[in-house]
Amino acid sequence: MKKYSEMSREELLALKEELQAQYEEVKAKGLHLDMSRGKPSAEQLDISMEMMDVLASGDDLKCETGVDCRNYGVQDGIPEAKRLIGEMAEVNPDEIIIYGNSSLNVMFDTIARSFTHGVCGNTPWCKLDKVKFLCPSPGYDRHFKITEFFGIEMVPVRMYPDGPDMNAVEKYVNEDESVKGIWCVPKYSNPQGYTYSREVVSRFAKLKPAAKDFRIFWDNAYCVHHLYDVRRDFLVEILGECAKAGNPDMVYKFCSTSKISFPGSGIACVAASKANLDDFRKYMRVQTIGHDKLNQLRHVRYFKNMDGIEAHMRKHAELLRPRFEMVLLSLEKNLNGLDIGEWTKPYGGYFISFDAMEGCAKDIVAKAKEAGVIMTDAGATFPYGKDPRDSNIRIAPTYPSLEELRDAVEVFVLCVKLSSVEKLLGQVE
Amino acid sequence: MKKYSEMSREELLALKEELQAQYEEVKAKGLHLDMSRGKPSAEQLDISMEMMDVLASGDDLKCETGVDCRNYGVQDGIPEAKRLIGEMAEVNPDEIIIYGNSSLNVMFDTIARSFTHGVCGNTPWCKLDKVKFLCPSPGYDRHFKITEFFGIEMVPVRMYPDGPDMNAVEKYVNEDESVKGIWCVPKYSNPQGYTYSREVVSRFAKLKPAAKDFRIFWDNAYCVHHLYDVRRDFLVEILGECAKAGNPDMVYKFCSTSKISFPGSGIACVAASKANLDDFRKYMRVQTIGHDKLNQLRHVRYFKNMDGIEAHMRKHAELLRPRFEMVLLSLEKNLNGLDIGEWTKPYGGYFISFDAMEGCAKDIVAKAKEAGVIMTDAGATFPYGKDPRDSNIRIAPTYPSLEELRDAVEVFVLCVKLSSVEKLLGQVE
Repeated sequence: MKKYSEMSREELLALKEELQAQYEEVKAKGLHLDMSRGKPSAEQLDISMEMMDVLASGDDLKCETGVDCRNYGVQDGIPEAKRLIGEMAEVNPDEIIIYGNSSLNVMFDTIARSFTHGVCGNTPWCKLDKVKFLCPSPGYDRHFKITEFFGIEMVPVRMYPDGPDMNAVEKYVNEDESVKGIWCVPKYSNPQGYTYSREVVSRFAKLKPAAKDFRIFWDNAYCVHHLYDVRRDFLVEILGECAKAGNPDMVYKFCSTSKISFPGSGIACVAASKANLDDFRKYMRVQTIGHDKLNQLRHVRYFKNMDGIEAHMRKHAELLRPRFEMVLLSLEKNLNGLDIGEWTKPYGGYFISFDAMEGCAKDIVAKAKEAGVIMTDAGATFPYGKDPRDSNIRIAPTYPSLEELRDAVEVFVLCVKLSSVEKLLGQVE
Repeated sequence: MKKYSEMSREELLALKEELQAQYEEVKAKGLHLDMSRGKPSAEQLDISMEMMDVLASGDDLKCETGVDCRNYGVQDGIPEAKRLIGEMAEVNPDEIIIYGNSSLNVMFDTIARSFTHGVCGNTPWCKLDKVKFLCPSPGYDRHFKITEFFGIEMVPVRMYPDGPDMNAVEKYVNEDESVKGIWCVPKYSNPQGYTYSREVVSRFAKLKPAAKDFRIFWDNAYCVHHLYDVRRDFLVEILGECAKAGNPDMVYKFCSTSKISFPGSGIACVAASKANLDDFRKYMRVQTIGHDKLNQLRHVRYFKNMDGIEAHMRKHAELLRPRFEMVLLSLEKNLNGLDIGEWTKPYGGYFISFDAMEGCAKDIVAKAKEAGVIMTDAGATFPYGKDPRDSNIRIAPTYPSLEELRDAVEVFVLCVKLSSVEKLLGQVE
């Protein structure tokens, strides 16, 4: 394959004509395909259907301490749920609070609480002139939406395969008191599928924040979401590292079963130091009488223990692996050597990150849409939706069927090629 | 029966000795009884057990628009849940948002949102020097805790059998721009079981608030919670009244199925004008990907329609009625004519409100506790936990069994008598 960058103008023009013809053909098919969101497929949801039968009308619905899970009571999670989810989150049951159906909601509420009431007795952020968050980018659009919603200034930090640019993180966190937090998806990151290295985690734990109320928002959304049985990324547990480094209160870790059981009907948790959890509880006590304990019980009785969760995740992997491999194979086959794009090759998570030639991402996503394939909006992976290089595109291969996915990726690579040629011809602005 | 107030000192002293002896006897029994919270009894929860079977592994879990309730998607409630809960809330399906498991949580978030983002584009409350809420008292302690938590100044307003003192409400709301809200439990009120009259609702709807962002927090927690088939309180629907009066945006109405299906595992809603719901949705879109749709589906498939809910509530009433009647009968039998207390006689809801002689409530609750009967803290029904007359006590007869309840009420009336005698003897401070 000849690199596009080495083609003559004539070659490019000929290529463009050819690609344009293919594109018109594809458009004529009237496809309706969606690679935009990290949604499980219907087959994945089928895996968990027996969870619907696990609590029945004849059952005793008490938790192990004898509390009736059907009634009010138990603020921060039934003990067996704390143990199960604690094991998944790699913390002790007393280092965890079990919440409702959405860890994103817990993160939002954490920011809201910091705004109105402050973190562990510190000044409420609403009383401060300036609050900043570091945003390793590309990153998760819904994180960025939360901080944007509260008028928090977002500072992009570059992401590398081993994690965020720690020189930049250290400089901002240790020197700027208005930096109050950082968004992290440390394992199988959204959108790259990167996992932070031991060195990066260690540098996180050893930060010396200028702000006493600086917190790492450690969204371990994909903690057990491996694609392979053997080849897996390993992430050092952050709470322990922070404690060892003398920073026990510096991190909030979030997890959920959204992509284990049912999205929207799972259970979420936060793991943190006692001081932090007490701070959470003070708010929670006023905010709600308690979360859905029947759903906690349902999860515990279904999964039983960590082995149960792992066995379950292997079933998800069997459905996800071919999807990821099909996308990667197609990218490889169609784009390798053309010098018009790079992409990540994750061992887990829900996404593949694609970097197009600078200035092409928006155009590619628009072209794909015109041909009936919905991608995540270009720019969404950056704070304020603004990718300074207009290059990053998030590919979400989980939701479509294999057949749909094959069609969708074909459209995508075609759009990448066409846009790149136009760019090289000076036809993309 | 002779009124205590008409007894001579000698009579009182003799009576005290007799009551004291009974009290010591009761204490020796070592009771452990709880009349403190509005919790359903285990028998009430048993009524809903078939809800556990209503979604099974072989079922189609799509809602009527074809959305898979197991997956992400649908922000503000599946259509059939909006229709069912809308009917219960006496509004159209498009005037409602379905939330998670707790209407208290929705109220809290509404205040939090008003604080950080303001109401419908008005100044966020965190930027104001002073925010006040009117608190019809006695009222619901958890409402007061929310406003207290946000540092909102609570202004008590006297409650009458037909609703709050509307002269005071009109004066505050129409003249003071810092008054941003009022807490109302308009039907079978907590703790009295009062229902606002047609005239009161009409005066609410016709308020002319000084603050553009004034809202009525209409917590219709007991909308279908009647004790009797025929003798029922009727409450005029507030959204319609407000719209007719030219104040369509002035009210948020909250409901939930917490005391219909399972507390903590029910579904909650807010009903309001389109402008208000759009304001809620703007926040919700960032706060969460969505609420538990499987639980929405579970409720709809179980109850089917409003007839189903009403039939279900009749079963609750069968269990609640004898409890309320036992308490009322015991109060009547033991305290009538003594001039040492007054109490309400509700047709629905979860509570009976008791007014002891001024200055006796704390002492009565302490005495009951010493004898093994837990009541709601005296004062809890007032803002900041401070009952200016130290008189009101909330009786929650729903949770104990009939046998337990008989014992508990006997202890209670004994403590009322003893405390009243001591008060008249000048022995209670």
